[in-house]
Order: sequence, then structure tokens, then C-alpha cells
Amino acid sequence: MSPHGRIFLATPGPTNVPDRVLRAMHRAAEDFAAPPFSETARSCLSDLARVFQTSGQVFCFIGNGHAVWEVPLVNLVERGEAVLVPVSGRFSQSWAEMAECLELETVRLDLPRDQPLDPAAIEAALRADKERKIKAVLVVQTETATGITSDMVAIRRAIDAAGHPALFVVDAIASLAAEPFAMDEWGIDCALSASQKGLMLPPGLGFVALNERALGIAESCRHPRRYFDLNFRRGAMTYQWFHGTPPLQQIWGLRESLDMLFEEGLDAVVARHRRLADAVRACVGCWAEAGALAFHCGVPEARSNAVTAIRVASDIDPDAMRRLARDRYQTALGAGLGDLEGKAFRIGHLGDLNEPMILGTLAACELALRRSGIAHGPGGLEAAIESLALDDAATRAGDPA
Amino acid sequence: MSPHGRIFLATPGPTNVPDRVLRAMHRAAEDFAAPPFSETARSCLSDLARVFQTSGQVFCFIGNGHAVWEVPLVNLVERGEAVLVPVSGRFSQSWAEMAECLELETVRLDLPRDQPLDPAAIEAALRADKERKIKAVLVVQTETATGITSDMVAIRRAIDAAGHPALFVVDAIASLAAEPFAMDEWGIDCALSASQKGLMLPPGLGFVALNERALGIAESCRHPRRYFDLNFRRGAMTYQWFHGTPPLQQIWGLRESLDMLFEEGLDAVVARHRRLADAVRACVGCWAEAGALAFHCGVPEARSNAVTAIRVASDIDPDAMRRLARDRYQTALGAGLGDLEGKAFRIGHLGDLNEPMILGTLAACELALRRSGIAHGPGGLEAAIESLALDDAATRAGDPA
Amino acid sequence: MSPHGRIFLATPGPTNVPDRVLRAMHRAAEDFAAPPFSETARSCLSDLARVFQTSGQVFCFIGNGHAVWEVPLVNLVERGEAVLVPVSGRFSQSWAEMAECLELETVRLDLPRDQPLDPAAIEAALRADKERKIKAVLVVQTETATGITSDMVAIRRAIDAAGHPALFVVDAIASLAAEPFAMDEWGIDCALSASQKGLMLPPGLGFVALNERALGIAESCRHPRRYFDLNFRRGAMTYQWFHGTPPLQQIWGLRESLDMLFEEGLDAVVARHRRLADAVRACVGCWAEAGALAFHCGVPEARSNAVTAIRVASDIDPDAMRRLARDRYQTALGAGLGDLEGKAFRIGHLGDLNEPMILGTLAACELALRRSGIAHGPGGLEAAIESLALDDAATRAGDPA
Amino acid sequence: MSPHGRIFLATPGPTNVPDRVLRAMHRAAEDFAAPPFSETARSCLSDLARVFQTSGQVFCFIGNGHAVWEVPLVNLVERGEAVLVPVSGRFSQSWAEMAECLELETVRLDLPRDQPLDPAAIEAALRADKERKIKAVLVVQTETATGITSDMVAIRRAIDAAGHPALFVVDAIASLAAEPFAMDEWGIDCALSASQKGLMLPPGLGFVALNERALGIAESCRHPRRYFDLNFRRGAMTYQWFHGTPPLQQIWGLRESLDMLFEEGLDAVVARHRRLADAVRACVGCWAEAGALAFHCGVPEARSNAVTAIRVASDIDPDAMRRLARDRYQTALGAGLGDLEGKAFRIGHLGDLNEPMILGTLAACELALRRSGIAHGPGGLEAAIESLALDDAATRAGDPA
Repeated sequence: MSPHGRIFLATPGPTNVPDRVLRAMHRAAEDFAAPPFSETARSCLSDLARVFQTSGQVFCFIGNGHAVWEVPLVNLVERGEAVLVPVSGRFSQSWAEMAECLELETVRLDLPRDQPLDPAAIEAALRADKERKIKAVLVVQTETATGITSDMVAIRRAIDAAGHPALFVVDAIASLAAEPFAMDEWGIDCALSASQKGLMLPPGLGFVALNERALGIAESCRHPRRYFDLNFRRGAMTYQWFHGTPPLQQIWGLRESLDMLFEEGLDAVVARHRRLADAVRACVGCWAEAGALAFHCGVPEARSNAVTAIRVASDIDPDAMRRLARDRYQTALGAGLGDLEGKAFRIGHLGDLNEPMILGTLAACELALRRSGIAHGPGGLEAAIESLALDDAATRAGDPA
Repeated sequence: MSPHGRIFLATPGPTNVPDRVLRAMHRAAEDFAAPPFSETARSCLSDLARVFQTSGQVFCFIGNGHAVWEVPLVNLVERGEAVLVPVSGRFSQSWAEMAECLELETVRLDLPRDQPLDPAAIEAALRADKERKIKAVLVVQTETATGITSDMVAIRRAIDAAGHPALFVVDAIASLAAEPFAMDEWGIDCALSASQKGLMLPPGLGFVALNERALGIAESCRHPRRYFDLNFRRGAMTYQWFHGTPPLQQIWGLRESLDMLFEEGLDAVVARHRRLADAVRACVGCWAEAGALAFHCGVPEARSNAVTAIRVASDIDPDAMRRLARDRYQTALGAGLGDLEGKAFRIGHLGDLNEPMILGTLAACELALRRSGIAHGPGGLEAAIESLALDDAATRAGDPA
Repeated sequence: MSPHGRIFLATPGPTNVPDRVLRAMHRAAEDFAAPPFSETARSCLSDLARVFQTSGQVFCFIGNGHAVWEVPLVNLVERGEAVLVPVSGRFSQSWAEMAECLELETVRLDLPRDQPLDPAAIEAALRADKERKIKAVLVVQTETATGITSDMVAIRRAIDAAGHPALFVVDAIASLAAEPFAMDEWGIDCALSASQKGLMLPPGLGFVALNERALGIAESCRHPRRYFDLNFRRGAMTYQWFHGTPPLQQIWGLRESLDMLFEEGLDAVVARHRRLADAVRACVGCWAEAGALAFHCGVPEARSNAVTAIRVASDIDPDAMRRLARDRYQTALGAGLGDLEGKAFRIGHLGDLNEPMILGTLAACELALRRSGIAHGPGGLEAAIESLALDDAATRAGDPA
Repeated sequence: MSPHGRIFLATPGPTNVPDRVLRAMHRAAEDFAAPPFSETARSCLSDLARVFQTSGQVFCFIGNGHAVWEVPLVNLVERGEAVLVPVSGRFSQSWAEMAECLELETVRLDLPRDQPLDPAAIEAALRADKERKIKAVLVVQTETATGITSDMVAIRRAIDAAGHPALFVVDAIASLAAEPFAMDEWGIDCALSASQKGLMLPPGLGFVALNERALGIAESCRHPRRYFDLNFRRGAMTYQWFHGTPPLQQIWGLRESLDMLFEEGLDAVVARHRRLADAVRACVGCWAEAGALAFHCGVPEARSNAVTAIRVASDIDPDAMRRLARDRYQTALGAGLGDLEGKAFRIGHLGDLNEPMILGTLAACELALRRSGIAHGPGGLEAAIESLALDDAATRAGDPA
């Protein structure tokens, strides 16, 4: 059967690229050294700082999220120095592996996969580092693999409580423009993100924000590096900002996506993610009553507003259901990753989404569950609709606009 | 609030334009007299005949559906001759008005608005035309305003039963590529359609198909005309086919939409429309149980697979609900038209649609009903999901592809 | 050989559609009855009046230029009344034929094809109409087939001098947004244009502007009509403005092209056309020195700023040269039309053009002439460059911006 | 003045992105792990090997040309080992700097900037490396800064003549799909390219091709690395090929550009570049006769088919002329880089180009020269036209198709 209609993309990255952004990228190439492009690129970098909520500096890399993971490792830590990596999912684990590959001493803190990061464990690990070998704590705010968002403020407090000078480096790839994020206020020294999630762009750009302290450390860092070197990128010329030819079309798309975020308002964007995520959770809660499905995250308030991981009973093949949803109902759900491979599926709900998109996704998922013979409690869709209705009624007091 | 996410377009025209079609139209202008464009245009005209299922000739007009209504009137009927127009909704009524404006003697057959056209009434009207002044019977297959599809085969039989030589002219604007249509097999002499419904294109093109008999009549017709004259358009040159500059981008889009229809298969397209319409009807049936909403069409088997009209209780303002759905939930529902103004709303379900799109539309509609305080029975979404699941299980015997 | 690079479109319609316009049209369909679209459509209609320079009303038709030719004929003239049509090229001739088809009494004034319209001849024809049967004079400002622009002010004076009440109806299809045009100031009662020339849009829209006098006549006109009826279109509802479903994507494109025209400034647009046309004429003047090519228009100041027609010696096949230019050098030149078929070719130079586009077109044309063995004087390109350089130096006094 | 018409992009990267490619990239995001995308990505990687003309393996990196420079350095050379870098322009110099930053022992061979690389010098440098510390010779085939193409076959012979086992690593960023390239036949072990030149894509992808020998060395290389590690990318999963989220839209664009290259034929693509470059050189040769302008490259047969560098007399500001061309005539020329800064300008002529595009560029350049008061010999455009005409006549014997 030939596909018809729109794909419902419920993977937690890439996310839907708004038509406005695709249009902005559908544009003939230009001289990147001329003022029109330079000014656009510069405006994006400074506006990204507004999104990270920092007075520091933001750098843009041609690369994906994994590429920018490398940036703090080679700019803030010397070869042979240590990093602390709390590991609680597939992505934090990969970041730890990267640090090892780059010959950093990597202190892995193995934490439960179904709960948010435990600040006390981080504090203890830092206290144990008597020699202050740890230069940076690498924390993933929202683990895409588990759908769990940890508490960055509490982790900052833990670092402070330990009296440890380590830099606080946060992967906000799955959380930026979906969950609250306030880099300076939360005492984050370096934050990372990428284009293809809350920023609603095609994959291909990564972003790194540094505060003054981190910039100073990068300036004198002797870790061998070139493409990922931040100092090279602090020059005045456009090609320096991107270490070579800039990605014009992607930057035009970024300009548009930033405009969209500011038009909606960053707080409103976050509120929308929370509102839609609540609807997803209301629906999944009903489904779970039949016993075959369950929230992976055992701590309700840590369930991410970007992605929900759903465990399935041991006799269920979630990937067969996902293939049916994808091939028959044009609804792309996320697979279980790492420990959750074959044991879970994920519903991504971040980026350019609205109520009918989420409700259509949930309904198509229920249709796939039903056709796959996977038991699920009734009333999921109505619960989602009710959640949205109550939320709107509460926050708007009946004002439809 | 700035809009985010995709619009859910549930008006019965224009319908969603597939991304493939929009892409095909995003193309630099060319010399329309050169072979590449001429060949594309020619292929579209002959492939449209496959869609109408006729061995006759199809003409393409720059214009909308109302424009092509004029084509049979000025090519098949002489000024002063008569047409018979069964009127059962806003669109058939407008077509009758057009005939009057063009100084045709117009026999209006006023029929119930909530039922399909009665073939017996048509037969009686033709029998009453002893002088054979009626040159054509103008029939709307699917009344967009009422969501009712009439039985073309039965009407052909009625014309035959009356032994009347009138041409059988059918408006298939809302039905082509949504409902079954077989021009030659059903004895239709002239059929009309437009780009913005089942053909999934932007509005701006109209199509007229004529069989040999109708072509012969057009050839000798003396009705004054020029832009809508079919004879001019039968020349060998590309500009003649369009009576002037051809609409290049629209034709490139048409080429793509025809490719999509043939890739899916015309029968599969119709089956998909029926399947999705069944889901809508299952949902609306549940909603109706609370008494405030009801199917407008009293004859279940005549409910259109393209659009569903839903009457509301007299104390309900359907347009306030529609505005809420549109402005707050990005879901565009159709208004009640003509007699139904302020008394109904419509859900369009034709064109480039799939399961999550329909389910998302229904869910957003239920959300708007709920927030508008309009009583609706429970279980609508689940009934729609069940309808789709059962249909798939039946027709595919479990084959997901 | 597979084509590569951009087509150089030098047909006098369709013209290049700017990327900005194509992008604006690459947009998902919406509810046309909702305020966002209605407001855009309304703004286009009122901004078109600025382009026509009238305080009257502009109507937009789905149709091409030939479609809107029909509008004044059926709204301003009763069946059986007369129109005066000065004929000097293929397009004015077709318009006269249309009037005849519509059963208007058509007074053709056969004028030389290589000169602008003679106001004295028009005055004489009107003076001869003692019974005042002529309701309208139909004048083509720029004959696309001959590349000749006539003097509208002089023709208005001629009508006035004759003391004749006939309406002054002008086809500005090839001239609007290329040549000066001032409907009210010039005493034009009704003006027509279309989307695919100076307005830089895909073909598919036609525009009709009427002043108060013409609107009044249309209001009481009894000529049978419906799709082209102006009165129907004066309603308050969006669908009335377009007599049925509006062409959403085309209107979004129109909004963008109007924005582009106003950003550049209408006077600057006209000045640019004159400047680029001067370069074309400088080049063609050099080519002509070899004797095989000649300007078709014998009156230099009447040579159009939109299109240049070039006659070839009788032993030359201009169409073979055009095919070479088109198939081998991706440069689409216009054919000779009507009397000029096989005797001329045309270079269109209107719409979205700049200096390198015009110079590249001329150079590719010279390359095709050379490879076709068509004698042409030397120095054409340098003359074109010199023309542009001198013009810029004069008007800008050396200011490059 | 608001810009109108198309930009003429004559920078040597980014180059024009064909409309077909932009269309292919204007596409909604999908599940990258599903078969449709995986199969497309796989086909691109294997088709790239056809472009490089290797039976080895090609890897695709999200990154620009500078990013992929790093790949051979960290996969083929151990920290502390040596590389030989013949430096003859700004880009080869930057590559040498990168090697130094990455703590490789970098043997710079400083060569003349206005001539192709001297194979004898390379041979001598390798012979001098008695200890065989040099692991790789890093050679830029076409120096974008100087517009000079060196002889890869001769350099391979030089390496062989020296009997040195160093890997032959070639930067084909500015030459692939513009100049002849035959990786395996020429004995190249590793070749690099990027998306934004001959491959006609937006900037953002880099490509690295390795033969079996190089792959084996990469496999056991202990140089610390992660994002640029080739071994990670040899897995079976789509995300491994890109080390994280794949760049879907860019890959869809790449698929289209590869299709275009194969439709035209790689040999025809190279021949077209040579033909258009000949025209540029014919024109520049005429301009040079006035003494103020000169070819930078003193060896005619080494002048690149991708870009031409033109030196200006010492009293001339080439950048003021470039700004005039860019801001007034929408023609973007390349600046002088490195040693040539302020002393030269460059005309890029690679990628998606045809005759009128090149001729328009040259004419606009001449217009800017003229308005800048820069002396230039006459007849440049006619010489370019003659060059194209003679070439066509010779290779086609008059066959226009």
C-alpha cells in the first residue's frame, strides 16, 4: 500500500520540522561572507543564549548531538584528568564511553535506570574525590532512552554541598525548549543541545553554551583538538564561527525556529509540552490498568515532558507493534534502547506538536495495540481529552484564544 | 497564542495537499510551448479520463468548481432550452441559479435536504416534459452541504425509464476519487470535478469529461461563449487546451497527484475513504446518543464517504464550537451551509488522509465539544478505533502491510 | 544530455517566479473562511488597486489573461451592442474574436503591426459612430506579440476629442508592473491584468479593475453571465470574491509578490524594466548591423520595456535557432506569433530579472545565433554592459547601493 | 534597493543548490531507523564510492570540509607520528595547522603559490625521511584559494619513486565532480570531499573514502577519537553510520544530487566543467590584455576547472569591486584568501552551472569592473561565447542535442 497522509512522528528525535522552517531552508545558496548571512548567523548565536538563559556564549557546530558531547571533553578537560558521569540510560552511558575513548579518566556512577539521578550519590562521589581530579560532572537532564528528567537544581546543590570545584556540564539535548531550563540561574557551566528535538530543525547542528568560567578554562586548555576547538571559533569572521563553510540553509532554518519559539514565548512552549505530556500520561495511565503496560519511570514527577517510555509485559514484542503502527498507521514510535531493548516502546512528544497531533498519535497507538492483541485498559483517549480540557479550563478560565 | 504544529483540515474542500504535490509545484516557470510541459499536460488529460473512467475526452480549465459548472451549460444547451435540476442542498441550488443567470429555462425539482435524490421524482419530471425541452439533467453526486451521496446508477435508470433523451450531467466535484465513479459504465454523458477535493490539489483547476455524444452536441452548439468553449480547446497547441497561458505549476501538481492515486490504486483510494468514513460515523454515532447531535442524513447508506454533516440541537451554536476548534485546537471543521447555517457542522474526510489524521480530528472535535459544553455520548474515539481495527482485521486477515 | 543549472526564461509570460513567491505558495491548505485567509485576500485586492493606481475596485479571477478578457465584455456591454477594437497584433485580434463569439457587434480597426496604435484612427472611428453604439474601446497597452507599447494618454485624448462616451478598457496584461500605468490619472475605466507577467506569479489568476463609472454600468448590465459576473463577487464573504473556493496558494503567492513590488517601489520596478530593456535594445541594435536581424517595431520610443520582437531575414528559420537555445543552452526565447510566425523571435524581459540574468540571456542568444550561422553584428554584449553602466552612473552618480 | 532576480553565485563554495535538490530536502522528518531511510542512506554511501571511483568504503560525516580533514589525521596516524603537507595555498596551510594542533609531527613543504605542486619536491621530502616517520602525505588536489589543480598521478609516481610507504591522502573537496578523479586507478589511499561544491548540496556533509589498506590501518589505530572514529561507523545500524542521529534531509538531498550526476554522467559533468572553465579563461584572457588583471596561476594547464583566481594591479581594490558586483548586480565573486587577500578575486565555476549562468556571471563581472574603473581588455564576452561555440561545434559536429 502506498502511503497517504502525513507521518505522525512520535520518535523523540528527530521531531517534526515545521513547514515554516522547511520553507526557510528552501533557499538558494549565497555568499556566506556577505553581511546578510553573517548577521543572520550572529543573531542566531545570540538568540540561542536567550533559549539557554545564559549571559555566556553559545557556539554552533555542524554535527549532531553526539558531536557536541565531544566539545566539553576536549575544551574543558585535559587528557588524563577525570570526569564524573552518572549513568542511568543509554545516552549517559554513551557519553561516558566517549570520555574513555578520548582518554579521560572516567568515573562512572551507575544509577538506577527507572528513576531520576540521585543528587546524594553525586555528592558522595564528589566528596570521595579528595584529590579533586574530577574536572567536570557530565549530567543528562532528560534521558531520552528512559523518558526521565532529573533535577538540575538539586544536582547543583549537591556539587556545592560537596564543596567540589568541578564544572557542571549538562546535556540538554532532549530537554531544551521542552522542559524548563535556566543555565545561569541553575549554576550550569556548560550546556549542550542539538537541532532536531525541541528546536524543531533537521538533524545536523549542535549547540554548546559556556559561561565565563568555562570559557576561561577552554581558553587555556591544552587538550589537542581542532574542529571542536572553541578558541578558533571565537574569531570575527563567519567561517571561523563554524570552522569552515557555514551551513547556510540550516542557519536560515534555525533563524525561523527561534522566531517561532519567541513568538510563542519560551514559557508557553514549556507549558505546552507539559500540557501535551499530561495528556499522554493520562492516556497511558488508563492503558496500564490492564497490567500489560506500565510507565518505565517509577517516580511520577520525574516523567519527562519530552518522551514517555512504556514497559511491556515479558511476553509482548513491542517492536512488532511498533512496526504495525509505522507501516500500517504511519505512526512512528520510539524503540526501547539499551536495557530496554525489546522491553519497552517510547512515545516522543516534543517539538512542533499540538492537541490533534498528540491525540491522533495516541489513538493510532491504541489502534496498533488493539490489532497486536496487547491488553490495554479502556478510556485512554477520553482521559487524554479530559486532561487537555481541564487544563485549558483552568489556565484560561474559558478564554478560547 | 502563536500556532504550532500542523493544521487539521476537516473542511470538505480545500483538502490537504500532500507534501509531494506541494514539492512538485515548487518549480521554476518554463516555456509552456516546449515539449516537456506539453507532454506532461497531455498525460494529465488522458490520465484524468482513467479517473473518470471514461473513453471520452477530458478538458482542464483554470477555474474552480463553480467555473466548470458553466461549461456544460454553455456547450450542451442552447440559450432558451431547458435543464432539469434536482435541488437538495446549497450546491445544487447554486447550480440551478447559474443556469437561470445564463438564460436557460431551469426546471427546479425541490427535494428533501436530508435524503438522497429520489430517482422516481426525476423520472416523473422527465415524463412530464412532453415536448422534450429538457436538454440536460444536472445532478450533484455528493452534496457537499449535506454530506449525502445519491445513486447515479438509479438516476440513469430513471432517465432511461422515462425514455427521455436528456443528457445526464453529473457534478462529481466532492465525490471523484472518494466515492466509486464510473462515467461510461453508469451512462453519464458529462461529468465535472475540481482540483481541491479528492484530487488533493490547491484550488484553481476544474475538469470536464464528455463522452462522444456530448462532444458532438458541443461541437454544433450555438450558445455564445469563448473562455468556456470546448471546441477552441480541442486544438493541437498547448495554449489551446487551456485557452491561453497554461497553469504550469498546477499541472505539475496534478501530474504528481495522479501518480499518487494510481500508485495507491483507485479502488484502494475509494476503500480508504470508506474505511475512514466508517470510523467517523462510528464516533458520531456515539456522540449522538446524548441527544444534542444527530446525523443530518436520515438514510445511513447515503451518508457520504467524503463529508459528514451533523445537526445540533436548537439551543447550540455550532459555529462557536467550530471557532474554538479552529483557533484553539487547529482543527478546521466545516460550517452548516444554506438551510443548515447555524444548525449543523460538517467534518470533511476526503483527500490525503490516514488513520491518525482522522482520529486526531475526531479527538480534537470531541475536545472542542466538551469545552463548549455540548453534550455528547461517550466512547466515540474507541468506537472509531474499533471500526478501523475490525475493518483491517476483516480485509487483511491480520496482514499488516 | 540531462539539463543542469537554471532555465533562463525569456518568454514574455510566464515569467520567472521568485523563490520567495514559490516558498510562500508551498503551504498547507487552510479553512478559507477563517479570518487569516480572508484578511490576506482582502489585502491583496486593495493592494492591487495601488498597482493599477486606481481608487476603484479590483476583482480577482481564477483564470488566465484570456479569461479576464471576457469580464468587461459580459459586464459592461449588452449583447448586441458594439465594441471598438484596434487590432495590431495577435492578442488584440484574439480579443476581437472573443467579442464576436460573445455576440457583441465588433468594430475591428485594422492597424499596422509594426507601430503603436494610432490615436487619430481611434478618434476617427469613434467620430464615425454617430449612433453611439460603441460601448467600449478595447485597447491592448503592450502587444506581447509585437513588443509594441502604445500611448494610453493619447488614446484617452482621442476618445475625449471625439466626444464619445465609450468606456476606455485597457489590457495591461503585459504592461502592468513593467511599464508606467496610472489608471485613474489616465482616465481608464476598466483595466485588466494577469498573474504570470509583471506580477511574477504562476499563471492562474486574472485581475480586473473598474472605476466608479464602470462599476455602475456593470451593476445594471443585463448580459447573461455567472462565473464572470462582477456583482456576485461584490459580497462580503470570501467565497463570493472568487465565486467559489478561493485559490489559497495563489493568493499567498500574490501577497508575497505584492510585498516584493512595494519593497522595491513601483517606480523603481518600472525604472528597472526600462534599464534592462535599454540593455537589450543596445545589444539587438549591434546585432542588427549585419542586416539579418531587425527590430520589428519601427518606432524606437514605442519599443516595449517588457518584450522585444526581432525580425529575421527571409532565409532564416528563427525557430530552429530558438530550439537550439532552449535545448542546448537552457534559454527559452519567444516565438513569432500571428503574422510574425516563422519570421521573428522575441526576447521577453519582464518580471523578476536583474542584470546578470539579462546579460546571460543575451549572451546565450548570441551563442545560439552564432551556432545557427545567423549573421549578427559584433559588440552586442559590450553595448549592453555599457548601457547598464552608463545608466547606473547617471542615475546614481556612482552610488552602488 | 530590494534585490530582485536570482543571485549569481560565483563563490567556489557553497555552490548553487539545484532546485531538484532543494525540493528533495523539503520533506517532513521520519523515523531514521525504519527501512526507507536506511536504504536511502546505504545507497548514497555506495554511490559515493562510484563518484570517488573506488572499490573501498565511503563514510559520511555531519560536518564541513574542515571537519573531514580531521578524519585521516585521527584514524590513520598515531599521535606523534609524522605527516608531510605540501603547502601552496590557504587551504593546504590550514590542513597543516590542523595536523599540528592534533600533535602530529608535521613536515610542511613550502611550495610556490602560483604553480601546481611539484612532484619532485614531494619525492625529495620523502626520500629525506630515512626513518619512515611520515605516515601520510596530505595533498590538496585543487587549491580553492589559488585556483590551481595539481597532478595526482604524478604525485603518486613521486611517492612510488621514493619507495616510501606513506599513505596518499587527497583533499578532493574542490575537485570531486568537477575535475577528473579516479581514486583506485590513481593509487590514492584516502580521499576527502564535502557536500557544498561539485556535489551541489548545502554545506553540512563531509565524505571520506578509504581503500582496503587505509581501512586496515584505521582499524588498529590507537589515536584517541570518538566522533571521527571510523570503526564505530562500520556497524550495521543507521545511527552508527552517522555516529548518532542521521541528517535525514541532507541525505535526501544527497540522493537527488547523486541521481543528477549519474543522469548527466560523471564524464559529462567533468567535460561540462572544462567547457565552462574554458569560456571563463577565454574571457579573463581578454580582460588581462589591459595589464591591470592577470591569471594568478602561471601554468595554463594547471588552471582549475572549478575556480579561477585573478590578480589585480597593486593600486586596485578588488574587494570594492566585489562589493559592487554583489550589492548592485547580485553576483557573488570570491575574495582573495591568505597571501592573495586584497590582491586578487576569484570566479567560482563549479557545480550546477550552464552556459547562460557563466556568461551572465562574466558579463556582470565586466560591468562591475567597468563601473569600478578597473581597466580590462575588450572582447571578453565574445571570446567566451566563441569558446563555447567552437567547443560545441567540435564535440558535437553540429548536433544540438
